[in-house]
Amino acid sequence: MNRMNTPCGLDVALTVIGGKWKPLILFHVQSGPTRFSEILRRVGGISEKVLIQQLRDLVEMKVLLRRDHQCVPPVVDYALTPFGETLVKALVPLCDWGTANRNVLSAIMAPPRH
Amino acid sequence: MNRMNTPCGLDVALTVIGGKWKPLILFHVQSGPTRFSEILRRVGGISEKVLIQQLRDLVEMKVLLRRDHQCVPPVVDYALTPFGETLVKALVPLCDWGTANRNVLSAIMAPPRH
Repeated sequence: MNRMNTPCGLDVALTVIGGKWKPLILFHVQSGPTRFSEILRRVGGISEKVLIQQLRDLVEMKVLLRRDHQCVPPVVDYALTPFGETLVKALVPLCDWGTANRNVLSAIMAPPRH
Repeated sequence: MNRMNTPCGLDVALTVIGGKWKPLILFHVQSGPTRFSEILRRVGGISEKVLIQQLRDLVEMKVLLRRDHQCVPPVVDYALTPFGETLVKALVPLCDWGTANRNVLSAIMAPPRH
């Protein structure tokens, strides 16, 4: 019975990763501790201000760990916590589903031709 | 390497199930064809108008099938398509993650006591 087991479980998960940017941010830090400037570059199209807030949310949720290396010029990086790793693992099938169905969904979502 | 394989795959998936209601609706129709009034009752807290729009989106995305039984009084029900079944399956780990971490996240998200 590989079924969703409660409605709220998914709701809880979407509270953490909801929105446009958070899944992308998680994707781009999964390879290891990543500096702010590097996340900004990798995610692309996100403003510094918005990235700061998204990272703050993820740190608050204990999904990311923020490390300030206390040096000049400042070096700050972000890494998945063990808790964050479990979230990324749970996201993999959904990510694979999206990748596998990208073309199907693009065709479905394309505006009808006239 | 059980990692997310592209940023966009997740984006694609979230385009389909994004928002507050769609995951809940999918949860509540996974057991089989379900009538509109029953979905309304099960989901709870959603207006008829919003439910109609959410169902329309899911039908448009080929995730749900709408069946009008052409009778009086009208009987309309909704069921997962085979494509929708693959989406629900991909959502299971995230749902389980949310369920397993509900208490942890409630504690994290609770406002600090004074």
